[in-house]
Amino acid sequence: MSKGVLLIVSGPSGAGKGTVCSEYMKRRPETFLSISATSRSPRPGDEDGVTYFFKTREQFEKMIEDDGFLEYAEFCGNYYGTPKEPAIKAINDGRDVILEIEVQGAYKVKEKCPDAILVFVLPPSPDVLRQRLTGRGTESPDVIEKRIGEAHREILRGANYDYIIVNDKLDLAADKLEIIADAEKIRVCRNKEYLQNVWDLKE
Amino acid sequence: MSKGVLLIVSGPSGAGKGTVCSEYMKRRPETFLSISATSRSPRPGDEDGVTYFFKTREQFEKMIEDDGFLEYAEFCGNYYGTPKEPAIKAINDGRDVILEIEVQGAYKVKEKCPDAILVFVLPPSPDVLRQRLTGRGTESPDVIEKRIGEAHREILRGANYDYIIVNDKLDLAADKLEIIADAEKIRVCRNKEYLQNVWDLKE
Repeated sequence: MSKGVLLIVSGPSGAGKGTVCSEYMKRRPETFLSISATSRSPRPGDEDGVTYFFKTREQFEKMIEDDGFLEYAEFCGNYYGTPKEPAIKAINDGRDVILEIEVQGAYKVKEKCPDAILVFVLPPSPDVLRQRLTGRGTESPDVIEKRIGEAHREILRGANYDYIIVNDKLDLAADKLEIIADAEKIRVCRNKEYLQNVWDLKE
Repeated sequence: MSKGVLLIVSGPSGAGKGTVCSEYMKRRPETFLSISATSRSPRPGDEDGVTYFFKTREQFEKMIEDDGFLEYAEFCGNYYGTPKEPAIKAINDGRDVILEIEVQGAYKVKEKCPDAILVFVLPPSPDVLRQRLTGRGTESPDVIEKRIGEAHREILRGANYDYIIVNDKLDLAADKLEIIADAEKIRVCRNKEYLQNVWDLKE
């Protein structure tokens, strides 16, 4: 049986990457959506195993020691990380895996899993991002401009990604994520086993 | 406007690569299907500009001198080659291009056009290939086994290709060629211009 593919989805705030991943999960519910672990305290609306896996600092540090993360980082005094074992198991079981994580974490995962596919979701343009953020009505113009600056920097950091999805229409963006997963499955490098077993291809 | 992608389709005899390309052309008639040039004489059924562009040896050699080919080779005393100018023009006009050529030629094109996408079409297994060749009823068992040996060697040579399409069902094989073209268009390396112009990404 062939392995699943590991799709890492990143992008600036306001790009809609979470919505694209949700739409993809609706279409391909057999996909394994990785849930991050964190040492921060649950907040109202949080659900253990749904929004995050909640751990104590001690539990989290024990997992770090045991090489239990594909990547982890500390923000504002709290740990956040991608549990390794469930994602690797899913891939080996032939299930595709989605990790929605930020760029620095993505590059760390790519080091451990060179087969990982880095997908960057971004809004069509800074103007569209500005409209989206303004439309929410929750942020001041200053904060919005700060967010756009952050988006620029995030896109700079994503320059070594494999694919970009310009999220103009949700349906088309989800189509693209499906196309990426399907195209990657027929790359020669992912079919060495078939070529060896069926066609006697030697390494 | 973005450039088209250059799809190079190869595969052993009996893989059905010609049929897959024809089906693709039906679905995406805006694609430019490259026609080879040759110095061999036309045979019954040949049509200039359809099966081949027919050239004299002198004309062909003049084109070689003028760097008029993406690749060319001599077989059995006749030249065969892929004219450069129409393919490059189509790509620059934003049209996708299909070249159906053999593996050695494909690698030569890849050297000149590193963005070219190498797609290998193959039958599901040596047994299926044997059945297909037997089904034609035109070849002796000896010739069929020779063909299967050639297919093995061709697949060895194709080990550095980008994608494989296992041609089990024509429709699915053509789907895969579409998926490859679409996925390649959203690779980061093909969208540098958009990232630079819209998001100020520097090289």
